[in-house]
Amino acid sequence: MRLALAAVLLALPVTAASQEAAEPPTPASIVAAAPASHWKRIDPADLLVMDLAPDAAGKPRRVIVQLMPPPFSQGWVENIRKLAKAHWWDGTSVYRVVDNWVAQWGDVDETKPLPEGVSEVADGPYSTASVAGDEDTIVLWHPRTYLDDAYSDWAWFVDGWPVAYRIEDQTRTLSSWPTHCYGSVGVARSVGSGGTGSELYAVIGHAPRQLDRNIAVVGRVIEGIEHLSVLPRGTGEAGVYEKPEERTPILSARLGSEMSDPPRFEYLNTESPSFGDYVHIRANRQDSFYKVPAGGIDVCNVQVPIRRVPAE
Amino acid sequence: MRLALAAVLLALPVTAASQEAAEPPTPASIVAAAPASHWKRIDPADLLVMDLAPDAAGKPRRVIVQLMPPPFSQGWVENIRKLAKAHWWDGTSVYRVVDNWVAQWGDVDETKPLPEGVSEVADGPYSTASVAGDEDTIVLWHPRTYLDDAYSDWAWFVDGWPVAYRIEDQTRTLSSWPTHCYGSVGVARSVGSGGTGSELYAVIGHAPRQLDRNIAVVGRVIEGIEHLSVLPRGTGEAGVYEKPEERTPILSARLGSEMSDPPRFEYLNTESPSFGDYVHIRANRQDSFYKVPAGGIDVCNVQVPIRRVPAE
Repeated sequence: MRLALAAVLLALPVTAASQEAAEPPTPASIVAAAPASHWKRIDPADLLVMDLAPDAAGKPRRVIVQLMPPPFSQGWVENIRKLAKAHWWDGTSVYRVVDNWVAQWGDVDETKPLPEGVSEVADGPYSTASVAGDEDTIVLWHPRTYLDDAYSDWAWFVDGWPVAYRIEDQTRTLSSWPTHCYGSVGVARSVGSGGTGSELYAVIGHAPRQLDRNIAVVGRVIEGIEHLSVLPRGTGEAGVYEKPEERTPILSARLGSEMSDPPRFEYLNTESPSFGDYVHIRANRQDSFYKVPAGGIDVCNVQVPIRRVPAE
Repeated sequence: MRLALAAVLLALPVTAASQEAAEPPTPASIVAAAPASHWKRIDPADLLVMDLAPDAAGKPRRVIVQLMPPPFSQGWVENIRKLAKAHWWDGTSVYRVVDNWVAQWGDVDETKPLPEGVSEVADGPYSTASVAGDEDTIVLWHPRTYLDDAYSDWAWFVDGWPVAYRIEDQTRTLSSWPTHCYGSVGVARSVGSGGTGSELYAVIGHAPRQLDRNIAVVGRVIEGIEHLSVLPRGTGEAGVYEKPEERTPILSARLGSEMSDPPRFEYLNTESPSFGDYVHIRANRQDSFYKVPAGGIDVCNVQVPIRRVPAE
């Protein structure tokens, strides 16, 4: 496993910008040197901008979620768009926070009527499957560049998102699914239900990958996760706050496309050479602090570079 | 990778207590059913009990760290014992908090004189190495039960602690090291120095395994991590608080063996059948919420069960 991984990562070319530098490249230097063509804009229509009530010192708290693109979780994502357009989250709250687990928001009583057209989505599947292939196809499926993964056959990135893959021996299908990492946003649900997307959580601890393929991952927090991760942990059942006054009110949640001046972001294209270099150097740190390069990295420790940009 | 892991984990016996239950076993049910003989006491001498100043509501904040046993990091652990006995941390503070990274404490100015006998430890090695073996020995080194690991050849647990292993092809030595997981406590250091152990950090995010073999892991927070993980994130350089009043004062830090009534803990013996079952079920959840068992787990997602016990 180690050899396969090391070989793949070491085989990645390191592009000119980092080779020419006097200091060894770092993840930050690779990101800084990546040309404009290696970045992709995030459509404001794919942002959910959520404003919590100001903190005790009166400081605003904005949490920005990027919604998951097709082919994953689109039933829930469509519901989330409808909920945002209906201003459904306005006046709800963050009502559950569990250390090294999640912060969860929505309607704590689950009695608030849902907007027209928002209903429960079927309880899975939470992965997608390709058509079945023969032995030759299966060999071709395995990519040249990938990360070793304790939860799947391999992991890599698609359109900027961490994705895990498994070849199902029985059916000879290739299945893939979005992974639960720090900052991932998922749909809270009860047993036997897929949930609607009105009750959401963000991961605020070590990647709870056992939730993969068991809950819909619908997005990730790309700015302001600290407004959720610092909230007091709930002391009621399952970490729900015991008293209403412990909750953090949600003032509003809007799609970026409904704002007059939405925040603008871009991400490092995960198909670009710069991203390959970035993963390689994250897995093999060469700067002076590091005595022993790790020689590998797990998909949730990669953190796809995302940054603010001015309006076009 | 998947097959090897699944085979090993599925081969683990599930003990009587969980087999007899009407409901499928869960990690919690396995822990609850583990007999007393499967638990091991933690020596109060191996606890560092740190009291932060009460929070804004006047509630006490106690953080309890279990110190790393031999053979790892003992130079720093001995320094930590001396620092605690000298009451050195009293009056220092938590001065740096970075989201999805660490909370760090000690003397922010690094000017406070260190106690007699506390000096810098050499900058590595941060792993231990066995004597070199021939081909046959190398085969024998590989354990029957292990976890697949993106950062090493395999990972498992020793005396209750997560440990990674690598066979060095060049020297044919087996090296092992303690891993950086959520709650792990490490020694802050500058480039070229191993640090003393006076400046410590606790991990409050996804396991930063690239720090393995680059920084001394000296313990783990076994109670009260939430008093560190909820602290406001620092806005100065590298997440250091900009203003002294942002720091959280440390009232005292004592070894459990110096307290008249120390807190008492036990951990699930990682060599016991109950622990094997626990890992197996964490990797293959069968309770009704889970539709697709993960089929694997990473070492930092296992969380060795540790609980309070009355004094003997």
